[in-house]
Amino acid sequence: MRPMQISFTPAEIIKLVEPGRTCGATGDQISGIGALTVAGRGEISFLGNPKYRAEVANCRASIILLPLDYEGDPAPGQLHLMVEHPSAALARICARIEQQLWPKPAPGIHPSAVVESGAKVDATATIGPLCVIEQGASVGPGSHLQAQVFIGRNARIGANCWLMPGVTVTAECVLADRVRLHAGVVVGSDGFGYEFVAGRHEKVPQVGMVEIGSDVEIGANSTLDRARFSRTVIGEGTKIDNLVQVAHNVTIGRHCILCAQVGISGSTTLEDYVVLGGQAGVAGHLTLGKGAKSGGAAAITSSVPAGTFVNGVPARSYMLERRLQVLFQRLPDLFKRVAELETQIKLSSA
Amino acid sequence: MRPMQISFTPAEIIKLVEPGRTCGATGDQISGIGALTVAGRGEISFLGNPKYRAEVANCRASIILLPLDYEGDPAPGQLHLMVEHPSAALARICARIEQQLWPKPAPGIHPSAVVESGAKVDATATIGPLCVIEQGASVGPGSHLQAQVFIGRNARIGANCWLMPGVTVTAECVLADRVRLHAGVVVGSDGFGYEFVAGRHEKVPQVGMVEIGSDVEIGANSTLDRARFSRTVIGEGTKIDNLVQVAHNVTIGRHCILCAQVGISGSTTLEDYVVLGGQAGVAGHLTLGKGAKSGGAAAITSSVPAGTFVNGVPARSYMLERRLQVLFQRLPDLFKRVAELETQIKLSSA
Amino acid sequence: MRPMQISFTPAEIIKLVEPGRTCGATGDQISGIGALTVAGRGEISFLGNPKYRAEVANCRASIILLPLDYEGDPAPGQLHLMVEHPSAALARICARIEQQLWPKPAPGIHPSAVVESGAKVDATATIGPLCVIEQGASVGPGSHLQAQVFIGRNARIGANCWLMPGVTVTAECVLADRVRLHAGVVVGSDGFGYEFVAGRHEKVPQVGMVEIGSDVEIGANSTLDRARFSRTVIGEGTKIDNLVQVAHNVTIGRHCILCAQVGISGSTTLEDYVVLGGQAGVAGHLTLGKGAKSGGAAAITSSVPAGTFVNGVPARSYMLERRLQVLFQRLPDLFKRVAELETQIKLSSA
Repeated sequence: MRPMQISFTPAEIIKLVEPGRTCGATGDQISGIGALTVAGRGEISFLGNPKYRAEVANCRASIILLPLDYEGDPAPGQLHLMVEHPSAALARICARIEQQLWPKPAPGIHPSAVVESGAKVDATATIGPLCVIEQGASVGPGSHLQAQVFIGRNARIGANCWLMPGVTVTAECVLADRVRLHAGVVVGSDGFGYEFVAGRHEKVPQVGMVEIGSDVEIGANSTLDRARFSRTVIGEGTKIDNLVQVAHNVTIGRHCILCAQVGISGSTTLEDYVVLGGQAGVAGHLTLGKGAKSGGAAAITSSVPAGTFVNGVPARSYMLERRLQVLFQRLPDLFKRVAELETQIKLSSA
Repeated sequence: MRPMQISFTPAEIIKLVEPGRTCGATGDQISGIGALTVAGRGEISFLGNPKYRAEVANCRASIILLPLDYEGDPAPGQLHLMVEHPSAALARICARIEQQLWPKPAPGIHPSAVVESGAKVDATATIGPLCVIEQGASVGPGSHLQAQVFIGRNARIGANCWLMPGVTVTAECVLADRVRLHAGVVVGSDGFGYEFVAGRHEKVPQVGMVEIGSDVEIGANSTLDRARFSRTVIGEGTKIDNLVQVAHNVTIGRHCILCAQVGISGSTTLEDYVVLGGQAGVAGHLTLGKGAKSGGAAAITSSVPAGTFVNGVPARSYMLERRLQVLFQRLPDLFKRVAELETQIKLSSA
Repeated sequence: MRPMQISFTPAEIIKLVEPGRTCGATGDQISGIGALTVAGRGEISFLGNPKYRAEVANCRASIILLPLDYEGDPAPGQLHLMVEHPSAALARICARIEQQLWPKPAPGIHPSAVVESGAKVDATATIGPLCVIEQGASVGPGSHLQAQVFIGRNARIGANCWLMPGVTVTAECVLADRVRLHAGVVVGSDGFGYEFVAGRHEKVPQVGMVEIGSDVEIGANSTLDRARFSRTVIGEGTKIDNLVQVAHNVTIGRHCILCAQVGISGSTTLEDYVVLGGQAGVAGHLTLGKGAKSGGAAAITSSVPAGTFVNGVPARSYMLERRLQVLFQRLPDLFKRVAELETQIKLSSA
């Protein structure tokens, strides 16, 4: 199989990264990016961290981005580009590739989209094929609904959002600006609330909404439930990975990180800068203080003070959990020692 | 950002809840619902549980729903409505809001929907934009396929079901009445069955189906696999949260509760009224007896007798797990005590 | 509710399985398949494993597939078909049912599909209703996009693939041949990568892709992230269940098995024939050697040597974890024994 259709001439790379100095030369077309140890001919690599400096000499990439003070010689047919920040230079190349991968679409509404009367779509927004926008909904300037997206009644999408294929935003939910929802995200499914009456679970109406702050990104197939009443809130700048569940009436602060398959139960609050490892679960009605952190697969069953790192099932202080796990592994030895003590006691009392 | 577009005059609220008695008055338009401690002006609150009675005096809501025997005075500009059941009165208001959020759509088939010849859609059903209904499938009276829903060959949707955007029901699957499937639910994906032959996993055909009873609700992006042959069954009244996995040939009884991200492995049976906490997992070929319960994140690796509450990884009786976790935390102390005993024994035998 | 619309006459079954010998007779139409203990009249059963031979005598199925050397008598109105491999004979019947469930669709592009100019669809491929194929993408011979599928720019779908409703394959991703993606699968969502700069998480562009080998099958609503640069790779013949998360830059070998709700963190490598139980999680930057195996819900936090079976949270060698769990259950007894030793020591030293 062929690699990604990236294609830059050395001259184009030079134009993009504006090196302070160059050394060597290559005629190779650049069609890939790789770490120093794996990049090969036709690829570009970079020294992002000084501790890998020794790897540069053996790197077989056609072009290497290096710090200004780098002094080694390029291999034959290899071009060294000395720049102030190799990582930043690489980011500029990646940003250019991003534009090729996902070019800014032309504004307008695809003829196959279904936009109900009374929906407002800004003239600079792009509504891709087979999207549905229900009445009263609005889509702000520069926003892009890629394809097969659903926007429910009175929902509001801010400016410069990107909603990928198959995203659902249900009635009354609100997205601020520059929100990025990956394919299959569901915003505003009903909260999971029932009352047990006469042997049956009677539904508690879920008539609140979900409010998502600016610069939030949410991974593929994640689900966020609407509040019972009032709001489920995702704070500005928070990043959520794939297949994450956020229950009703949860409040997530600003700049939090929720790794894949995390689950947050109803009415729990995460303050700003909380970080949860993959598959971690948080019980309902808890508060995780500012900057609290959990390891992957942690089961958080009580509130966590600000700045505290927890781990384990159930979750405890990270250091305690670590110590307990070490002792747990020594249980066979402990049982043996106790048995021996018992023998000795018996002997001594005999 | 603005709150939900709820808007009731005090007179409309009074008409809805039919109070036995009123006290005070307000001219405020009601545009939100909140608990006693958080509701503010322009919102309605309620005393659902007598133990919060003391909070009423400080509540700043414009209208408060109270039991008939409530005697305190409203704040200035505040209206007290005394009703038999404040929670039930609130539910009536929520139901009205639900109607506003999700008004009963007009029956009919949206022109953008693709309904194959030989599919039967009841005249009172609503097929929303960009749905696909394959041949031989049927949709019963009053059912609503909101948008971008897929119904496979010969699948049968009963009466008054609501299938939200992006739901997939594959060939031959059957839904009874009043089933509610949230966005992205997949009913009838293939069971995960292979035979290992000559170094490769050969697919075992999955030709059974999924049968879903009346009044079942299933959360966003949950997946239910079709049986190898025969049926995967979800019993009447069972409620399933988001991102739940139900494998092939699973039988779930009536009125069960499966919280978010639960996974049930193949051929396992849940009897009626089973409750599984979030992220719990159940191994294959087990039986969870009537009313069995698990904590969140429990890993259930053997069958559970009726009425038993289990927890832990692997799951054990809830009380045993709780005791073991207490002792686990005391391991550092236990190791110290054993070391001390060893010292004393050595000294005494010296 | 009615069973699946399977319907075979005894003569049709005989034609399909070509028995070496028959015994008895039935006039029943066959409309279902069941195990020996549950199959009833109008159904077919089979003796797949000799150890269940005793169950044949009590089986009430109308037709039973049996090995050539079977000697018992059929019940009245029951037909025994003696074949070389009863399981293989059953598979032939299931394959026929599969064809009825999912008949090979006619090639062509449904008029409601949106195929951008510059996309290449093989003349023998089937593009179902409401699919979107962006420019530069290609779909190979015999492949079937069932409905509401999205294929991004320059993505390539090989030959004889089957993409079910609501599947998303984003830009530049590549599928080889005979890949089967169940409903709601997302291939090529962005990897979860940010740099923390000045109190905010700045996005690291994810410009790699996902490459899926031949004969891979992926379950409903699973998500696979594109690489930061280069590739996320799923090797030939690997089978992935529902709701599984595969992060960016993961490399999965050939013929692996990932059960439902598994999560693999970024840059981890699974060599060939790895098997992960349901809900298992794997941390980032690890290697699971060839044939490594984990139990369900295992939390794998360090690399696993080839051929090793691990279990637990955190995961350890399966046998060690098993022994530790036995000792864990004996903690109450151990605490008692230590307390007793302390009493005896105190007495003896008194």
